[in-house]
Amino acid sequence: MTSTLPPTVDPAHLQETLDGRWAHVRRDARENLHDPGMLPVYGESMADARERVTRTARTLAESGRVTLGFPKEFGGEADAGGSVTSIEMLAFTDLSLMVKAGVQWGLFGGAVQLLGTRRHHEAYLRDIMSFDLPGCFAMTETGHGSDVQQLRTTCTYDPATQTFDLHTPHQAARKDYIGNAAKDGRMAVVFAQLVTQGKNHGVHAWLVPIRDEDGAPMPRVTIGDDGPKAGLLGVDNGRLTFDHVTVPRDMLLDRYGQVAADGTYTSSIENETRRFFTMLGTLVRGRVSVGGSASSATKLALDIAVRYGNARRQFSAPGEEREIVINDYLVHQRKLLPALAKTYALHFAQSELVSTMHDLQTAVHEHGEEIDEHAQRELESRAAGLKVAQTWHATQTIQMCREACGGAGYLQENRLPHLKADTDVFTTFEGDNTVLLQLVAKGLLTGYRDNFGSLDGWGRVGFVADMVRETVLERTAARALIQRLVDAVPGRDDEVPMLDRGWQLKMFEFREKHALEGAIRRLRKNSTTPGMAPFDMFNDVQDHVLKTARTHIDRIVLEAFVEGVDRATDPAATALLDTLCDLYALSTIEEDKAWFLEHGQLTPARAKTLTATVNALLKELRPHITTLVDGFAIPADWKAAAILEEEPARQAAMAARDAELRTATPQGTATNLEVPPGQ
Amino acid sequence: MTSTLPPTVDPAHLQETLDGRWAHVRRDARENLHDPGMLPVYGESMADARERVTRTARTLAESGRVTLGFPKEFGGEADAGGSVTSIEMLAFTDLSLMVKAGVQWGLFGGAVQLLGTRRHHEAYLRDIMSFDLPGCFAMTETGHGSDVQQLRTTCTYDPATQTFDLHTPHQAARKDYIGNAAKDGRMAVVFAQLVTQGKNHGVHAWLVPIRDEDGAPMPRVTIGDDGPKAGLLGVDNGRLTFDHVTVPRDMLLDRYGQVAADGTYTSSIENETRRFFTMLGTLVRGRVSVGGSASSATKLALDIAVRYGNARRQFSAPGEEREIVINDYLVHQRKLLPALAKTYALHFAQSELVSTMHDLQTAVHEHGEEIDEHAQRELESRAAGLKVAQTWHATQTIQMCREACGGAGYLQENRLPHLKADTDVFTTFEGDNTVLLQLVAKGLLTGYRDNFGSLDGWGRVGFVADMVRETVLERTAARALIQRLVDAVPGRDDEVPMLDRGWQLKMFEFREKHALEGAIRRLRKNSTTPGMAPFDMFNDVQDHVLKTARTHIDRIVLEAFVEGVDRATDPAATALLDTLCDLYALSTIEEDKAWFLEHGQLTPARAKTLTATVNALLKELRPHITTLVDGFAIPADWKAAAILEEEPARQAAMAARDAELRTATPQGTATNLEVPPGQ
Repeated sequence: MTSTLPPTVDPAHLQETLDGRWAHVRRDARENLHDPGMLPVYGESMADARERVTRTARTLAESGRVTLGFPKEFGGEADAGGSVTSIEMLAFTDLSLMVKAGVQWGLFGGAVQLLGTRRHHEAYLRDIMSFDLPGCFAMTETGHGSDVQQLRTTCTYDPATQTFDLHTPHQAARKDYIGNAAKDGRMAVVFAQLVTQGKNHGVHAWLVPIRDEDGAPMPRVTIGDDGPKAGLLGVDNGRLTFDHVTVPRDMLLDRYGQVAADGTYTSSIENETRRFFTMLGTLVRGRVSVGGSASSATKLALDIAVRYGNARRQFSAPGEEREIVINDYLVHQRKLLPALAKTYALHFAQSELVSTMHDLQTAVHEHGEEIDEHAQRELESRAAGLKVAQTWHATQTIQMCREACGGAGYLQENRLPHLKADTDVFTTFEGDNTVLLQLVAKGLLTGYRDNFGSLDGWGRVGFVADMVRETVLERTAARALIQRLVDAVPGRDDEVPMLDRGWQLKMFEFREKHALEGAIRRLRKNSTTPGMAPFDMFNDVQDHVLKTARTHIDRIVLEAFVEGVDRATDPAATALLDTLCDLYALSTIEEDKAWFLEHGQLTPARAKTLTATVNALLKELRPHITTLVDGFAIPADWKAAAILEEEPARQAAMAARDAELRTATPQGTATNLEVPPGQ
Repeated sequence: MTSTLPPTVDPAHLQETLDGRWAHVRRDARENLHDPGMLPVYGESMADARERVTRTARTLAESGRVTLGFPKEFGGEADAGGSVTSIEMLAFTDLSLMVKAGVQWGLFGGAVQLLGTRRHHEAYLRDIMSFDLPGCFAMTETGHGSDVQQLRTTCTYDPATQTFDLHTPHQAARKDYIGNAAKDGRMAVVFAQLVTQGKNHGVHAWLVPIRDEDGAPMPRVTIGDDGPKAGLLGVDNGRLTFDHVTVPRDMLLDRYGQVAADGTYTSSIENETRRFFTMLGTLVRGRVSVGGSASSATKLALDIAVRYGNARRQFSAPGEEREIVINDYLVHQRKLLPALAKTYALHFAQSELVSTMHDLQTAVHEHGEEIDEHAQRELESRAAGLKVAQTWHATQTIQMCREACGGAGYLQENRLPHLKADTDVFTTFEGDNTVLLQLVAKGLLTGYRDNFGSLDGWGRVGFVADMVRETVLERTAARALIQRLVDAVPGRDDEVPMLDRGWQLKMFEFREKHALEGAIRRLRKNSTTPGMAPFDMFNDVQDHVLKTARTHIDRIVLEAFVEGVDRATDPAATALLDTLCDLYALSTIEEDKAWFLEHGQLTPARAKTLTATVNALLKELRPHITTLVDGFAIPADWKAAAILEEEPARQAAMAARDAELRTATPQGTATNLEVPPGQ
């Protein structure tokens, strides 16, 4: 097949499609986020980085750009989706600043807003928004990161004094890795076990002052510093220990649980676990923001590596003087292009997630509607799944980009070291990825029923055995479109061309359904195996269960990409996105080729055709590689990479090379996508 | 199958097997390398790190521990293997120190020793050994890293003055990433095109002063600083530019090429490419050292993550109060144990490589024997392949260990951030891994014939078409043993138990042979395809060719592991290593399951049995996980990880947990390695 792609695609059309619903927020950021303190400073000390980031956070607050997610009556815009998109854009600048902002306005501010009630809003929201009240989100303890239901910090009510007693019972119960704690925080939202009238009602949150006006720790509060980290040097993570700290009764963030003066506990949600996970569920924005930020960093890394690879030459072709541009090597394309395709795919999936989250939260918080429990559980699962997918993709892709730039990629001046070090923690904070995969799997196994978003080790595995459930896949927004494509697949699976979108979708669907059904079957069998310890019932299948979650996420992402392509209006951009979507689908299938072979979905001959087809797609996309990163529309001054600045002649060379290839494709390097499998 | 492993294995026996031929060098390091400046300092500035590392390098020189590889008449021990082992041990301390030592005594000193002649040795070796003459190895240029044959720096002889003129013709020809350049270096071994009597004789090396006694740059030498890097902050990498610098004739390192006073060029090796790669070949130690050092860092990371995972608890088992030790989760075992198995495998392969290198170099440099060209090419290929395998394994494994330690793994105080950042560059320095894979592949395709170790893009791909070559696999040292095991495989392949070592070896062999034959066939076909550009002939097959190299390395490593197990004398240690070797073999096959299915070497049913067998091996090995890291025998004070120090009670808890599991295995969690494939 000769290339079906148009010779040129205007990246502005790609950008338009990517920008989507919150295009105005993205545009505003590109135009106005240019404070000189916002970019990483290479070789900066931890102390300097902290100072700079604190200073820039103030500038950011003054710009009013952090208030999108807060209620209108306090000066916000009640725009949940906008606030998350705004963080995603901030992540193109210094990631320390993004995390600092996320802590202050997302986690700390968000907790006060969503777990607190009117009196907390009136007393604190304005100061939080202006950064006059820097604060912490003190949930994680040294001993409990993933299993936050088991936090050891206690907060015990005494009706005699009408106060709570907040206490860290032992060293492993100290709050740890808390952003804003080591230097700036004046208050903290502290999570602890609420005990009143001798009964533990589970984890709740209190607003607790941790520093006085002069910045000194409050009495009985001990503050430690987590010191230098792998990255994010501008964020002052620290440790908090409470030695019987007195907290007034009205500092309980009491939206979901109240303690009366006499100590009587009330809540609209009776079940303790359900209540806790309802509280956590309101804080889903944090997880959504981390996923989006990981993708921003990935785009930046790809932008740098693609441009470098288009200018860098190494080794001459036989019989030629001029050396070869490294992006022309098949193996280099195999590194960059599938990563680019997946980055586009994840972008569309993230946009869909943000939109869903926005609509759900707006309905509840703005229009006072009842929470749709099923939709909320599904949202949390999607947020978890896409956080996992985007953060692991970031870790892998940024590493690959670093290596693709060789020694230059190891110098801080070329940005990649910061991107790598700063995003590294994303795979384990805001939920450890492995634990989050388990959450996703649990939702799939139970159909988002009675699930409460719990991250635990499955409790009674028996629930799977009890349930008779049809494994109907929950579809993304693109329901009708997807169904149409799947239904249109002609003939037998192994005769369908691999570029048939319906066939690709069917493969993703089949794998998810088969993996899920297999996991259910195995769990059910274990739960009736005499003498098998409950832990082993689950643990025996853990790898299979997590694989199920991964296949689910892959499908969600593909469907979102398909829908994204469908929304594009410019024909040239649509054609390019369509081919990129093929590459995402086929390289994902190729990565898990063993599974498809093992389950009879690919014959050995088809498997070879698959590899040949991926290689042919790489050839088709190669001339558009710069256009694809141009589509991210990252302002030049945000990149802060010396290799992109050093040689302005490179840009011209690059454009020339792409043009040359586009002209050559129909003749010189014509590709045949219907490669016979006999390689 | 109930566990066949003995209840306890003495790690000292593992250590003994691992320590091998240079056990005395390892012992000496463990006992004596305890200078307080040798460990990384967390949060240290670049300037402080550089100062500390320079200081400690001096201490190291004074200890006499750096002289192993130098000739006896200059105070060395002519022990090439010992010198590489010594660097590998140094890599357990601060990796900046390892790299600084590698630059000074390996690259710079090694180049003077091996490319220079008597007058250079007499004039400089003693000062190099004592660190009184810190120096650089100035090969890489900004524009040429991988393709060093195309360096642009020139050194032109003028018979009138009997001097050379060393010149950097343009910005991209400046020497870059040069260790010791930014701060300490007084001289540099500079690689440049030798031009005399109007003819270019290819790349040679000169000893060139770059700083005067006061540390100021020499006239016409411009020195730049590469500034902060992702890691290795203690190494002063810099840039060197030469503006017509005059270099006396006798500063040419003239072992392989001489220029007479009148400008006549002579060399014992006529072919220019061959000469250049012979020169490079003598410097193989550097590449061997990087591989070994990567493995040391990997061991350290695993040591930390395994111990943490044995103490860290998260989530309770159903019906139990106590939370579960995270090493008990199947998915955590799936992360740690295969990585541990591969680390052992690579250790044995590295030991074999060092031994081969030592014997070859001793024969040539000490006993004056002729170079065995075939053996030398094979050595270079092995060195390249194992450098690739060990450095990518390090990058992946250290990342995994970081994530396995959650937030704690992100704090510098727990060592993992330094291990990650410092080793990151290993995959692209001393040869970019992708380019090195190509070198390995080229050796396989040509049978190490007429290959010259060149890294180029294959030149005339036609050579493959011309050659009629039987693909006979070059075996490792364990020739007879391996053949015996392979020959003993009973019956049909798909009925053989997967724990049969002969079957495992046959799978690795089959894959390599098939991949190699396929690559040759495809290259041959392309070379006779009319109108196919020479570059495309090769590029079209590049992914296949690199895969061939990978399968080759995997086999070399498995064979070395098999031989290593064979050398163990303690029965308990042998049993444990044997099971670990099963895990390495089967998890490697599992990783490439698609290939084995695609090529009819696994049926779908066998593929499922494979997964079940790997899981069963994990259960068997779980109780010995601490023993396995104890086998690395890393002194406690080298670890410098706060999480290992904080809670001494952990050690006891850990040992107790292992013991508990070992007792329980035969009954409670009995595993059946002959799992039916119906999962």
